[in-house]
Amino acid sequence: MPPCVLCAATDPATTVLWQTPQLRVVRVLDAPDFPAFYRVIWQAHVAEFTDLTAAERSICMAAVATVEQALRTALAPTKINLASLGNVVPHLHWHVVARFDWDSHFPQPIWGSPQRAGDAARLAALKDDLPALDQRLAATLTQSTV
Amino acid sequence: MPPCVLCAATDPATTVLWQTPQLRVVRVLDAPDFPAFYRVIWQAHVAEFTDLTAAERSICMAAVATVEQALRTALAPTKINLASLGNVVPHLHWHVVARFDWDSHFPQPIWGSPQRAGDAARLAALKDDLPALDQRLAATLTQSTV
Repeated sequence: MPPCVLCAATDPATTVLWQTPQLRVVRVLDAPDFPAFYRVIWQAHVAEFTDLTAAERSICMAAVATVEQALRTALAPTKINLASLGNVVPHLHWHVVARFDWDSHFPQPIWGSPQRAGDAARLAALKDDLPALDQRLAATLTQSTV
Repeated sequence: MPPCVLCAATDPATTVLWQTPQLRVVRVLDAPDFPAFYRVIWQAHVAEFTDLTAAERSICMAAVATVEQALRTALAPTKINLASLGNVVPHLHWHVVARFDWDSHFPQPIWGSPQRAGDAARLAALKDDLPALDQRLAATLTQSTV
């Protein structure tokens, strides 16, 4: 087995917004069609949500909810998509993605078939909003009881 | 807008295993490549996870975790996939799917590209296990504090 990429200290395809000994929140940088793509990654190498205790699951989902709320407030997306899959990297991580009715895949999941070309101008505008969002999100996470 | 299919009282494509005034747990019957496909559906018509209160989110995820654990115990799947998307039907529902390294799409998400043909014999054997699993899962949910 190759080493787990989510156990590695650094991943150049993400930027870490906030972390604790239990979890970290990152923004994904290598999904150009979906700039507002975040992950909540459990630090310990466990595969499944139910490998966590109930208390740990609460902490994990509180972080997911905090990310979701920040995306809703800042971006008013058409829909938030949440997923914990891990078929390729079986290390517990939640995808939190802001979806827009104009994005390349909507209403398909981001893993589905493209429905149209990406809208370069809207994607660029969305990307411009993210550094400020990241800062507010990091502040909210820091102040939270997560 | 057409009426919401998840607000409708009955959906012939699912079988209801258990319900409370807040949520229901169903097995999905119309995904032949993925027989062990369950959903936790919030009864009220809300779109996003963060439309729930923190207490409601806990109740919702406790049900998701109970379904996941039942699938793990009964089926020893390669991986569990969890997702709340709702791009097509924006009524909060969680997909809980047992995935196997032999299934038609693994390791792609079920919404991704097929990787191989479905294995009819294994799918049939898996399907045979589900009625007993459903019964145990319904009993566990009934006994739970969900």
